[in-house]
Amino acid sequence: MRALHWNGQVLKLEADYARPKLIESMALVRVRLAGICSTDLQILKGYMGFRGVPGHEFVGEVCEGPGGLLGKRVVGEINFACGHCSYCFQGLARHCADRRVMGILGADGTFAEYVAVPSSNLHLVPDGLDDESAVFTEPLAAAFEILEQVQIKPSDKVLVLGDGKLGLLCAQVLHASGAQVTLVGRHLKKLTIARQLGIPGSLLDQWQQSRADVVIEATGSTAGLAMALTLVRPRGTLVLKSTVAEPHTISLATLVVNEIYVVGSRCGLFSPALRALSSKAIRVAPLIDQVYSLADGVEAAAHAARPGALKILLRCS
Amino acid sequence: MRALHWNGQVLKLEADYARPKLIESMALVRVRLAGICSTDLQILKGYMGFRGVPGHEFVGEVCEGPGGLLGKRVVGEINFACGHCSYCFQGLARHCADRRVMGILGADGTFAEYVAVPSSNLHLVPDGLDDESAVFTEPLAAAFEILEQVQIKPSDKVLVLGDGKLGLLCAQVLHASGAQVTLVGRHLKKLTIARQLGIPGSLLDQWQQSRADVVIEATGSTAGLAMALTLVRPRGTLVLKSTVAEPHTISLATLVVNEIYVVGSRCGLFSPALRALSSKAIRVAPLIDQVYSLADGVEAAAHAARPGALKILLRCS
Repeated sequence: MRALHWNGQVLKLEADYARPKLIESMALVRVRLAGICSTDLQILKGYMGFRGVPGHEFVGEVCEGPGGLLGKRVVGEINFACGHCSYCFQGLARHCADRRVMGILGADGTFAEYVAVPSSNLHLVPDGLDDESAVFTEPLAAAFEILEQVQIKPSDKVLVLGDGKLGLLCAQVLHASGAQVTLVGRHLKKLTIARQLGIPGSLLDQWQQSRADVVIEATGSTAGLAMALTLVRPRGTLVLKSTVAEPHTISLATLVVNEIYVVGSRCGLFSPALRALSSKAIRVAPLIDQVYSLADGVEAAAHAARPGALKILLRCS
Repeated sequence: MRALHWNGQVLKLEADYARPKLIESMALVRVRLAGICSTDLQILKGYMGFRGVPGHEFVGEVCEGPGGLLGKRVVGEINFACGHCSYCFQGLARHCADRRVMGILGADGTFAEYVAVPSSNLHLVPDGLDDESAVFTEPLAAAFEILEQVQIKPSDKVLVLGDGKLGLLCAQVLHASGAQVTLVGRHLKKLTIARQLGIPGSLLDQWQQSRADVVIEATGSTAGLAMALTLVRPRGTLVLKSTVAEPHTISLATLVVNEIYVVGSRCGLFSPALRALSSKAIRVAPLIDQVYSLADGVEAAAHAARPGALKILLRCS
């Protein structure tokens, strides 16, 4: 099959990559669309020491696996858990210590014609939901994860730092939940999209700084944290959504003196995201910059890494 | 009056330092005992850019002020708040943006014969409580602050990193609350004190590492945070008690991937601390290393800064 392969040095299209071998309890999915995420770009800089086929956002069609799923359109959760540890039993399979993570840790991902996924990770895509929306299920679930972790009240002033793909999704989710959201970023184009979705935003260099009850750090840079710490009110909450591999050099005295709550936030559950996409409570179409064929995947990854790029999709089959 | 004065370069005993001038709503307290805290030692390294009389832990006697307090033995909360901002109205005067902080920010402190404190900050010391215990009210309140911020369950495995004064107080408070506490540090003497108080402990280099639900970082060093992050279970809680002025250089990917809650924790309310000291639920006598006279204050500060030192007290009048 065709696949994009990362060998630790270079991302390359391989025409004859081995099709995933299925073991029991897994399904083979023909990938229709895959999304390129900032974590993928971090991986192409060495994050997690991953080697193999990157990619973890997808919508596809089951072509081998349990009868009930065959031929069905699906999306899939990315953590492949052991299924029998205390985290798995608590419904926190995404924290299983023995997990593999699709396209990130010990398992090939979705920048390929086919991907193998545990059947229990798959969710059916409702009929009315098109591929271009369904492919956002994974990043949108990551945005909903904030509400699994932190109580954000309708009266809370929320600041989303970073107008990238994840920032725009987080801003939408929190706006929909009733909070008073402001998005601050560096790109007029993206802030305009936010405004069309009803979310007030400001360019960082024109923004009249004011403190918020909750700050979502989604800049994807180490500089974001230092700034975020100064923007949370005392006893407020800072949610870290950026996975940044490089070390931060930062004084944390502000965190202690102002007794700030910081919470790291990663993957979420798919059901709330699928519901919100189906009902169009969250709109993702404006977030798509371009769709490439898998054959042009290397170019697509370069495009995704350009400052200001929004979501780049790969049509994989 | 006699006072220890920090001019930004050197700590010096002054024989004729001006007595604090009282403004309305303040009381003049003759300091009986003052405690030297790690924050004081940070200040003598430049933290907060403070100039003046350091010190914020004390027990004393009111010699000027409201009639009801005159002649009474008191301890005092260290944040001098404006009294009319939203934080003050929420009972969070210790986060008032306009606050001065005794011996730390804009107000002379307790390493002197007399200190001026807003009357509303003072708490009467119960008769049965001796000075050597009452002087621990402030640091013990800081330990209780953890329970104001985080729900720690009796079934929680709690790890206290750092066997210094604050670590020993935090370990005692959490142990008393029912949690399963382990103290890890570098000093056999201090771990022995903990063991005598019923708290199991281990020397860092002999400790069989295991993850905890809650980790209290009280090492006072930048290295403590990196270690603490690896010792919290996924979705667990890390409480930062150390105020460290130097910048940390650290990758926060673990925080995001494991979705750890981090909370900075500082000053607490005095009532729970006074209750616990009065009932002897918390024992502080074993934490006292030595009592110096104010005249020997410079030597006392040097002693407090020695590795392994426990609480150093100053008899100020």
